[in-house]
Amino acid sequence: MNRIITISREFGSGGRTIGRRVADELCIPCYDSEIIEKIVVESGFAKEYIQATEESYSTGYLFSRQFGPANEDILWNAQRKVIMELAEEGPCVIVGRCADFILRDKADLLTCFIHASEEFRANRIVEEYGEREDSPIKRIKEKDKRRAAYHRFYTDDKWGAAKNYDICLDSERLGIESCTKIITSLYSK
Amino acid sequence: MNRIITISREFGSGGRTIGRRVADELCIPCYDSEIIEKIVVESGFAKEYIQATEESYSTGYLFSRQFGPANEDILWNAQRKVIMELAEEGPCVIVGRCADFILRDKADLLTCFIHASEEFRANRIVEEYGEREDSPIKRIKEKDKRRAAYHRFYTDDKWGAAKNYDICLDSERLGIESCTKIITSLYSK
Repeated sequence: MNRIITISREFGSGGRTIGRRVADELCIPCYDSEIIEKIVVESGFAKEYIQATEESYSTGYLFSRQFGPANEDILWNAQRKVIMELAEEGPCVIVGRCADFILRDKADLLTCFIHASEEFRANRIVEEYGEREDSPIKRIKEKDKRRAAYHRFYTDDKWGAAKNYDICLDSERLGIESCTKIITSLYSK
Repeated sequence: MNRIITISREFGSGGRTIGRRVADELCIPCYDSEIIEKIVVESGFAKEYIQATEESYSTGYLFSRQFGPANEDILWNAQRKVIMELAEEGPCVIVGRCADFILRDKADLLTCFIHASEEFRANRIVEEYGEREDSPIKRIKEKDKRRAAYHRFYTDDKWGAAKNYDICLDSERLGIESCTKIITSLYSK
């Protein structure tokens, strides 16, 4: 079974950066936006729509799904297929998109959760991503809420509960570099 | 400010063992049962009673406390005083007793949470501690519930939420040795 590292992360915590650095250190691929491209092919949905589902999951959807399979369900199945195929190909890092849940019985997993304070993340999205929101804290809160709803709807797990991950790291308190080192060391042991 | 490592842990997860090993590696003291002895002196309460408060916190107490300060409050103040004094003395590891919360503004903290599956912990309490319960899983669940209630009552934090700790580790998945190494490396960085 291939060794896979999954990175779940709060928006703006630096989880994606950590995932890329870990993959670089280990000379294995890191899948993040690549997953979106593959889901486009698999599902036929537009890239922007797929991106929006994880980041801006509509809570209204929870009420509308009683009328048969929704686009989100079709998308979930495509995402599941893409992630399982990637995991078959070889060791890798997968960022986001519930990969920890999708692969839980199918791979030799190391599941990580990266978090940080709202203030740290708000500063980071402005500095690193050049976000120009008037209120980055409000944007963080909104993204947190929707990502948690998305995660809970599909996995039944509570987002951010320590027991759902092998390791949880505060990227603000420990630093991006230290988080990268710890995850890298756990992979190669 | 002294560098202090606090270890919060699920019952049977090996958090205490990890705390002792980290302290041995770093040649600093580890406070666990020693705290109880000091609280005995500070509060005048019996050792058995003090031990029982963290492990077997009575939920009935939550309803009775409206009739004035309870023994538990007196004990909490003694515990707070003891832990703050220990933190003044020098770098150390402190296991349990909400030290992470008590010291949050007073020390250079590294806060850790150690968890593992119920099955792992049930096996461990039978093998390591020689517990002879008919149903170790039931005992684990009961202890979890009471420890979480105790923690939440005094700290208002949700027990086991990743965001409350610098690092959370699954001692079953990663192993006691690996957890010890990670925490040790974070201290000395």
